[in-house]
Amino acid sequence: MASEMKTLDDLFIDMLKDLYNAEKQMVKALPKMAKKATSADLQRAFRDHLEQTEGHVERLERIAAEMNNGSLRGQTCEAMEGLVKEGVEIMQDDYEPKVMDAGLIAAAQKVEHYEMAGYGTARAWAQQLGYNNAARLLGETLEEEAAANEKLSRIAEGHVNMEAQTGT
Amino acid sequence: MASEMKTLDDLFIDMLKDLYNAEKQMVKALPKMAKKATSADLQRAFRDHLEQTEGHVERLERIAAEMNNGSLRGQTCEAMEGLVKEGVEIMQDDYEPKVMDAGLIAAAQKVEHYEMAGYGTARAWAQQLGYNNAARLLGETLEEEAAANEKLSRIAEGHVNMEAQTGT
Repeated sequence: MASEMKTLDDLFIDMLKDLYNAEKQMVKALPKMAKKATSADLQRAFRDHLEQTEGHVERLERIAAEMNNGSLRGQTCEAMEGLVKEGVEIMQDDYEPKVMDAGLIAAAQKVEHYEMAGYGTARAWAQQLGYNNAARLLGETLEEEAAANEKLSRIAEGHVNMEAQTGT
Repeated sequence: MASEMKTLDDLFIDMLKDLYNAEKQMVKALPKMAKKATSADLQRAFRDHLEQTEGHVERLERIAAEMNNGSLRGQTCEAMEGLVKEGVEIMQDDYEPKVMDAGLIAAAQKVEHYEMAGYGTARAWAQQLGYNNAARLLGETLEEEAAANEKLSRIAEGHVNMEAQTGT
């Protein structure tokens, strides 16, 4: 039997597992970020995104079930581990309260960008592989990550960055 | 003397140090990715982006010098460490050549997204703090990261994803 190299299908599954673990890590991190935030709209944004994130986990499970792929567990997303570590370092640092909010937004937007890259790629591969329902579901999550990122930009530019500078 | 909490200025410098270390890590990683790629346009994209990345390091050094901040060294960007680890894992895995190209593009786009988030935030803080020249320089790098990301999407959607699926 010839050696079998891994295919685009395998790479796609690896990406789904990576995203699955990344979302699970965020389910744990977001409540801590909400608790650490001072601005009410930022606390709410983190809590709302926690609910969305739980939905993203379920979507990935649905995709895996439809592909008869079984479990997405058992892979650690090291990039998300690094992103979470950075967030924890900010939370443990001694910033003024509104500067902390600005730092939390920065950490969260890095996570959103990571997920946008991952879901954008996963959707493109699903389309290429003809997994149309998976592509649709991945696209829905992608849109929610992009919207969450934009909401964080609005909060930062709306008041947090100015308050962080003036110390109000 | 009252305890002094860290300000937006401090957070801004922390972000510059994080980006500086992240860019330095990419200067080391990109030649390996170029070597591992099969598609000629992808090899070229990685080599071109290496040159740009060296320019991004210099821009950060200029910003630090203008702010009389001295060195940006001594900070490790753990998120980029995780991103690079993910890239190395893909490179060491046994994918078909064009599937490997698709995986390399995915890894690189995650890095580009990380940097877009970082530079976008750093520029917003520079504007808030009145560091207009720094904001301009950070915006230039941000545009180059976004353009590099779009180029990778064009290569993936132009031929790599299809070749990865069909094994050609």
